Amino acid sequence: MDKGKTTLVTFADLKDWEQRKRAQLINSLGGFKSVCLIGTVNKLGQTNLAIFNSVIHLGANPPLVAFIIRPDSVERHTLENILETGFYTINHINEGIYKQAHQTSARYPGEVSEFDATGLSSEFKNDFSAPFVAESNVSFGVLFKERIDIALNGTTLMIGEIQLINFPENCLCEDGFLDIEKAQSITCSGLDSYHKTVRLSRLTYAKPDREPTELEITYQIE
Amino acid sequence: MDKGKTTLVTFADLKDWEQRKRAQLINSLGGFKSVCLIGTVNKLGQTNLAIFNSVIHLGANPPLVAFIIRPDSVERHTLENILETGFYTINHINEGIYKQAHQTSARYPGEVSEFDATGLSSEFKNDFSAPFVAESNVSFGVLFKERIDIALNGTTLMIGEIQLINFPENCLCEDGFLDIEKAQSITCSGLDSYHKTVRLSRLTYAKPDREPTELEITYQIE
Repeated sequence: MDKGKTTLVTFADLKDWEQRKRAQLINSLGGFKSVCLIGTVNKLGQTNLAIFNSVIHLGANPPLVAFIIRPDSVERHTLENILETGFYTINHINEGIYKQAHQTSARYPGEVSEFDATGLSSEFKNDFSAPFVAESNVSFGVLFKERIDIALNGTTLMIGEIQLINFPENCLCEDGFLDIEKAQSITCSGLDSYHKTVRLSRLTYAKPDREPTELEITYQIE
Repeated sequence: MDKGKTTLVTFADLKDWEQRKRAQLINSLGGFKSVCLIGTVNKLGQTNLAIFNSVIHLGANPPLVAFIIRPDSVERHTLENILETGFYTINHINEGIYKQAHQTSARYPGEVSEFDATGLSSEFKNDFSAPFVAESNVSFGVLFKERIDIALNGTTLMIGEIQLINFPENCLCEDGFLDIEKAQSITCSGLDSYHKTVRLSRLTYAKPDREPTELEITYQIE
């Protein structure tokens, strides 16, 4: 790509940008993001479903995953339910459900479940107490472990341990890699842009004395 | 997609998986991830460049970005340099440089700069003290603000404030959205899989009383 003309924006310039325009730009900078639906239930059995684009892998042993909750009323039910019950599910989004997934970010009244409002189906698996999204191809149940409040801007990092993993059996590779592109998981950028993916390649483990080469993908079940 | 047969893996099952296979699966679950090169320099002027797949947007006002550093010697120089100088750059990866970007994860001796080892070019902009990757189309300079050590698994969340943003001028939309797909930024999954993207659509802001519709993309400069 010929980059063409580039723009430089400084911290001082940013202060002059209108607030929503600045939010769009800053949200775009983090790159392509994981986009998932987090399913919870309160003690009374009312389900909640909310879209998050800040899920990150934290470690494999123990299997830890984290996400950010903003100090915002739309995400408050997710936080409250997790603190109340200790469990939640994280569900990948695919092309078939991304508009419904996006719609879960609307400010529905407290008594409305986003499952009902958007037409997505809740599903309970293996006695796990939080609801999965039936239309999601890759999903996992998580046990809440720790919350870390970030004083700099009032956000909260929520950390949990993966308890139960659900995926299409023909997407697992022999080496344990799960082909989430084959499972039709999508990604997002900025606040509202959704994208499917096209694999360039998997690369071999990097070593100083050789260039990385492309890794052949071998599924456990063809 | 017909999901076909699905596999359920429990926490107890996972313990029996071979360590590297488990790491591959758990790393895949977080979904598609931001993949960036972080550029630093030490007090003696030696540059360092390392690939990270855990960059997350933390907030737009102030403009904060975070990433995870693992307790691992390959990433140690990035941490040391940031603590020493207070500055770093985050550089999006594109199809033209992803193999070189991946190669920065090799364990080079301490005196070797990954810029030299991989052939990527360092570039200094606007008196910002950390090196940018010249071949990156979207990049930004960051001022270190806070480190949060996560006791659960020894990782560290590094938080910084965005100071200087660099992007192709024809990728900025009128509403502030930066079209990182047009800028050829890529995404990754698992430990070693790289993907380009195909936009499904941008969606309108979700409101309870209407379904989201597709948002037209209007660039500031055509």
